Amino acid sequence: MAEEVRNRKVVLKRYVTGYPTEDDMEVVDGTIHLAVPAGLAVPAGLTAPAVLVKNLYLSCDAWMRGRMSKRDDVTTVVNDFVLGEASYFLSKVVESTHTDYQAGDLVWGMVGWEEYTVITHPSWLVKIQHTELPLSYYTGVLALEFVISVVSPNDVAGMSGLTAYAGFFDVCKPKPGEAVFVSAASGAVGQLVGQLAKLAGCHVVGSVGSDDKALLLKDKLGFDDTINYKSEPDLGASLRLRFPDGIDVYFDNVGGETLDAALPQMRLRGRVAVCGMVSQYNLDDPGEGVRMRNLPWLVTRRVRMEGFNVADYLADEEYYRRFEEAMAGYLRDGRVTYLEDVVEGLESAPAALVGIFRGRNVGRQLIVVSRE
Amino acid sequence: MAEEVRNRKVVLKRYVTGYPTEDDMEVVDGTIHLAVPAGLAVPAGLTAPAVLVKNLYLSCDAWMRGRMSKRDDVTTVVNDFVLGEASYFLSKVVESTHTDYQAGDLVWGMVGWEEYTVITHPSWLVKIQHTELPLSYYTGVLALEFVISVVSPNDVAGMSGLTAYAGFFDVCKPKPGEAVFVSAASGAVGQLVGQLAKLAGCHVVGSVGSDDKALLLKDKLGFDDTINYKSEPDLGASLRLRFPDGIDVYFDNVGGETLDAALPQMRLRGRVAVCGMVSQYNLDDPGEGVRMRNLPWLVTRRVRMEGFNVADYLADEEYYRRFEEAMAGYLRDGRVTYLEDVVEGLESAPAALVGIFRGRNVGRQLIVVSRE
Repeated sequence: MAEEVRNRKVVLKRYVTGYPTEDDMEVVDGTIHLAVPAGLAVPAGLTAPAVLVKNLYLSCDAWMRGRMSKRDDVTTVVNDFVLGEASYFLSKVVESTHTDYQAGDLVWGMVGWEEYTVITHPSWLVKIQHTELPLSYYTGVLALEFVISVVSPNDVAGMSGLTAYAGFFDVCKPKPGEAVFVSAASGAVGQLVGQLAKLAGCHVVGSVGSDDKALLLKDKLGFDDTINYKSEPDLGASLRLRFPDGIDVYFDNVGGETLDAALPQMRLRGRVAVCGMVSQYNLDDPGEGVRMRNLPWLVTRRVRMEGFNVADYLADEEYYRRFEEAMAGYLRDGRVTYLEDVVEGLESAPAALVGIFRGRNVGRQLIVVSRE
Repeated sequence: MAEEVRNRKVVLKRYVTGYPTEDDMEVVDGTIHLAVPAGLAVPAGLTAPAVLVKNLYLSCDAWMRGRMSKRDDVTTVVNDFVLGEASYFLSKVVESTHTDYQAGDLVWGMVGWEEYTVITHPSWLVKIQHTELPLSYYTGVLALEFVISVVSPNDVAGMSGLTAYAGFFDVCKPKPGEAVFVSAASGAVGQLVGQLAKLAGCHVVGSVGSDDKALLLKDKLGFDDTINYKSEPDLGASLRLRFPDGIDVYFDNVGGETLDAALPQMRLRGRVAVCGMVSQYNLDDPGEGVRMRNLPWLVTRRVRMEGFNVADYLADEEYYRRFEEAMAGYLRDGRVTYLEDVVEGLESAPAALVGIFRGRNVGRQLIVVSRE
């Protein structure tokens, strides 16, 4: 009989309305035998062997909020009460009955928020290639591959690197010299968009929620200018000041008031890539919505506003290789810096997740479950 | 000395906030000598000769509302208190010192809401080609050419035929069998979009504000189904019923609640062509805005929402010829019907303009100033 160890988990106690609180989640200690169990139920179409992994890093993303709600009218469904069934992780294989994986391999994929996971669908797993880069990068900036057949395509998210790359280059279609505005600019995706925009020869302004974050954007990430939206009484006026000739590209991570303020500042044939609308994920009553004053500017300025999802770019392998090559190169050369906000221990996970909706994180929010 | 006749005009009495009322306008009778005056001031870069025209038909469009407001933050400016400096007209040349035009020519272009106009910039004028079609068509469905150098490009509107054609085919990019939703479907543009969509092999549902209009769409224009938005308690539910598999293309003429109701019904990679947002043109307080609940569906469904303006399609002459050929053919063959709501006399113009914001018109709103 294999050794039995603690398997700590973060469990969702109840469906969430409004902002999530730490009390919506619970840290519970179970146990697990450190072996792939015999006679596992296997999802249709997948081969039988399984992999037991020890989870090292977990990511913590705004899109998870959607999986914490009980709503009938959305495609994203909370499968069960284990929070983050679809979280990204960076793991070490403990035992494997799958010929492609063996003990000690480093892999990434999706898993629950727990210390150990038995994976019965190893086609989701990706072995780590660029070991010269920080391992944690594989929870986001370098998450390079994912099989989407098992979950709804709407659930594929968290791949901040590919999201930033595809959203900026393919949805925004930037030209050198253009003016780019990024919201949630110190977040997982925003920080990369800003840096890619600088590499593309654009003028980049990012909005953030604190002066510390603003400093970071200018000092560490090369943004041309910043807006602390929490201390600006009139966001529209701030944008006019930063963009006297208007905005060519707005990479929108937040929606709501920031989007509304940006629309009248858009230049003719400007583009708004809608990556997320985090400002609306926690609205208690879906009927509440957001007062939008400036949508008619879409017509006045012939603006293209386009929602996208990283899932759409996963199918194209060639596209994919191009991204991998480019992004790994940028990171290696130091032309792109990736800010991570790392907390230690699975027990810190609920507070970390709650924090991203309050703007407490600086950079991609990560949880170290174990360092080895 | 040339004969002096009455020149009746409609004059804007004050800048308008909220819905325009008849009282915002005034019908005043001036006089005019039926001759091109000598020593006219000529706009820079234009040749000296001028044309005196007698106006026969005037159009009456929602976009004119923008020229009635006093607002600092928009590009569209009311040049003066003469309402409709930029209205379309269908006129007969009375006298001309320009070699391209002679007395009796039928022309179309832009002019004030008045009986006679001296045109010092005849490069705006277009002679009428298809005399086998109703003359009034040249105020909208067949308005084929326009020089945009003199006014702001944002002011070019009212060319309902080209607007419908370019917006539907080039912004929406429809495929046969797709499901199309059109709002303000009995209006100048909407009625044409619906018919073009049927010609393109699509399934078409239009929303209107009365049962009479709904009947007209099905009986006269071949729409597959209709929604009377005024009698539907839940627009989202009505749309789900009409589009059980979702909407591929939404041609938006109204914005606001209808847009918000349509967004969750959009199919993956659906397209929203934003032609106008008439529901918001009359908002008293720009801070009032509209409660939008469903913009995040842009991301969920990867929807492209794009504002456009007919001005963008005027520059491409080849495109233009294609439209002219197609639309004149459809009209001649009866494959496209054009509904016009005609009122008699310039003195009826204020009520007609006020009426289009209350949904009183059925089809393109026109004013007959004179029948010959």
